[in-house]
Amino acid sequence: MVSKVLIANRGEIALRVLRACKELGISTVAVHSTADNSAMHVRLADESVCVGPPAARDSYLNIPQIVAACEITGADAVHPGYGFLSENARFADILEAHQLTFIGPTAQHIRTMGDKIEAKRTAERLGIPVVPGSPGAVTDNDEALKISREIGFPVLVKASAGGGGRGMKIARTEADLPMALATARSEAGAAFGDDAVYIEKYLEKPRHIEVQVFGDGKGNAIHLGERDCSLQRRNQKVWEEANSPALTQEQRDRIGTICAEAMKGLNYRGAGTIEFLYENDEFYFIEMNTRLQVEHPVTEAVTGLDLVHEQIRIASGQGLSVTQDEVTFTGHAIECRINAEDPRTFVPSPGEITHYHAPGGLGVRIDSAVYQGYRIPPFYDSLVGKLIVYGRTRDECLMRLKRALDEFVLDGIKTTLPLFRDLVANESVQRGEYDIHWLEHFLEGQAG
Amino acid sequence: MVSKVLIANRGEIALRVLRACKELGISTVAVHSTADNSAMHVRLADESVCVGPPAARDSYLNIPQIVAACEITGADAVHPGYGFLSENARFADILEAHQLTFIGPTAQHIRTMGDKIEAKRTAERLGIPVVPGSPGAVTDNDEALKISREIGFPVLVKASAGGGGRGMKIARTEADLPMALATARSEAGAAFGDDAVYIEKYLEKPRHIEVQVFGDGKGNAIHLGERDCSLQRRNQKVWEEANSPALTQEQRDRIGTICAEAMKGLNYRGAGTIEFLYENDEFYFIEMNTRLQVEHPVTEAVTGLDLVHEQIRIASGQGLSVTQDEVTFTGHAIECRINAEDPRTFVPSPGEITHYHAPGGLGVRIDSAVYQGYRIPPFYDSLVGKLIVYGRTRDECLMRLKRALDEFVLDGIKTTLPLFRDLVANESVQRGEYDIHWLEHFLEGQAG
Repeated sequence: MVSKVLIANRGEIALRVLRACKELGISTVAVHSTADNSAMHVRLADESVCVGPPAARDSYLNIPQIVAACEITGADAVHPGYGFLSENARFADILEAHQLTFIGPTAQHIRTMGDKIEAKRTAERLGIPVVPGSPGAVTDNDEALKISREIGFPVLVKASAGGGGRGMKIARTEADLPMALATARSEAGAAFGDDAVYIEKYLEKPRHIEVQVFGDGKGNAIHLGERDCSLQRRNQKVWEEANSPALTQEQRDRIGTICAEAMKGLNYRGAGTIEFLYENDEFYFIEMNTRLQVEHPVTEAVTGLDLVHEQIRIASGQGLSVTQDEVTFTGHAIECRINAEDPRTFVPSPGEITHYHAPGGLGVRIDSAVYQGYRIPPFYDSLVGKLIVYGRTRDECLMRLKRALDEFVLDGIKTTLPLFRDLVANESVQRGEYDIHWLEHFLEGQAG
Repeated sequence: MVSKVLIANRGEIALRVLRACKELGISTVAVHSTADNSAMHVRLADESVCVGPPAARDSYLNIPQIVAACEITGADAVHPGYGFLSENARFADILEAHQLTFIGPTAQHIRTMGDKIEAKRTAERLGIPVVPGSPGAVTDNDEALKISREIGFPVLVKASAGGGGRGMKIARTEADLPMALATARSEAGAAFGDDAVYIEKYLEKPRHIEVQVFGDGKGNAIHLGERDCSLQRRNQKVWEEANSPALTQEQRDRIGTICAEAMKGLNYRGAGTIEFLYENDEFYFIEMNTRLQVEHPVTEAVTGLDLVHEQIRIASGQGLSVTQDEVTFTGHAIECRINAEDPRTFVPSPGEITHYHAPGGLGVRIDSAVYQGYRIPPFYDSLVGKLIVYGRTRDECLMRLKRALDEFVLDGIKTTLPLFRDLVANESVQRGEYDIHWLEHFLEGQAG
């Protein structure tokens, strides 16, 4: 077992990792910027090292300082949390070169999954379903029609050199295709000096569903079911659930088994999340995150497993604590990401928390590093805490979430708590009927 | 379903009941004394009524005021919590006379179990094991020897009229018996003017083990396993566990089934707890509590059931949400009762909480009605909060409890948090090797 873990992060996830280390009897080292001198992860760690000024690039992203902090304190392992250096392959390489254990996958796997094209190619090779499309650029309209018929309408015509939605056209029927091709080519030529276009299946109202996987780096891998993270604003997850209200047990088993088998094929090590768009009983690979996710607690709630314990076990060469057969899914969990932001404009609202009281009682988990009197610094993300609620059924979970939100006191700053109170009272959310565009429409409706 | 519940209590249990009501969509009425104007249960209830001055007998025990509060607010049911009026049969009768639902058993069952002799007689009749002893007073020494041999040594010779340990003698062997009888008779005669004595089995180092039962009042009843509450100081429970570290699954099933069958025989309604002393694979009935217990959350943790939801369902005539076969026991839970008391002298320490921060994260539940800036009034019990920790195994639970206790900040008053930090670090506690005398000895050792 690793004996002293340096936590290369801040905020609630630093505290999350610190708790897991303490529970395993492992010593902890916090690192912090000068803006975080009085942060809770610093107060609760066995040791702490200041690694630089407030700007993250000079502190939480400062690899030489973090490696030096390991050497000064004698830490033998580093947990990167999420964000910051968690998907930085060079960091993993440097730690290895210093005989320090990186609690995460190999640098090679981080690189592969960090490259969008390489990740999709790898996923396809491993049997993970990807968005069907033309193998490359399509120049001939008859060929485009043939491919589109194979994929099924609607299709998306996309500029090969594109980005930002330019040179992107939807063809809903065969009749739309020639015009879509012509317009996309013309826009692509004008915008990128390259009129090559390709074709991909167009998903109207997909859900975001992701599968939690773990590999032991010795050829064994399991999945821990899925999370539904369709409630997003500008691609930022806001509300996450396990299990997805949209999947059957058969679908859960099917996509889970595909992902676990793929991870065995990759000989993956540590925690990972394979993200999909989901529509009409089909899953389409988006990307793989080679780290712990913000929303991992909902998986912990329904499986009873501590995912950070598992990460540390694997990094220590002890393997997973369970086999796939031992993984069971019980009840329902929802996580709300409470941000220090105006709930209407989403403008960050740093400052001092004048009153803080978190809800308690049965089925309520709080992951937060704030406290009454804490001053949220303006330098980092605006997450002030995660409220995770568990119930035997989704309905029970929603009712419990409602009462927990009603109890939450977080004054002195603006937070997104009012948004969650609106969401839990919304009938579409209550029915679990939402896709990745739903929240944006909901917010537009509120604004109007 | 009842539609508006008046909660005839204060503190954490008032909040506990309030949460369950909110989760079931039921309106809530808080009652409070003038000392509790700013208490959290008052702040969070839909309505509140002041029922009297600080002294409990004039407010929380003031039946006419509480019934009037129901009439004023239109509450159709009353949840009594624990303590106060929860085991007051007259209160149950009065509510019934006012067509108000008492969320608890019948007045008759409260009376039966509230009378020690009647309770033991009823338990015996229902097949619940009781402490074996002579049927009544023993006058003849040969008869005493015969009975003692049947019971097995050691035995306790007790004054029939006795109490407070006077006229009570242990006979460890047959040879001790004549002297024990003579001394007990002599002491009893001197102390009570009545030298009648009887004989009971003497338990050297029993554990306190209690079984949670539920009946639907329609002849169906189930058990939810046991809690081990052996860590006590002056008969006050301090630390409670589910499951007991001392029982096997076979023992759990055996005593649980006996209790559930007994409750069917009694046609019991609502939540109840049957308390036992346990030694050498035998259970001995102490008493039955006809209400929710302080330590009910450990049962919730290992069964996944919400016991207050069940109480409300039963009171609403909906029956239990599960059958015995559907009740499963998973993992391990420990509750610490954190009191506003000096951890050495146990002298109450009311006053203002200047800093409050409860631990969070996976497997941690807080049931508390205090907050930073709250002033604990000197009029009521000293419980400031319950920390309930869950783990997949007892060892995981203990490690998690340790880290949660380390995180807990409760300043401005003295609390028993340091006692729990000592207990969780103690090897006997870690091994689960303790009886009902253990904590007293431990505290004497600390004092010496």
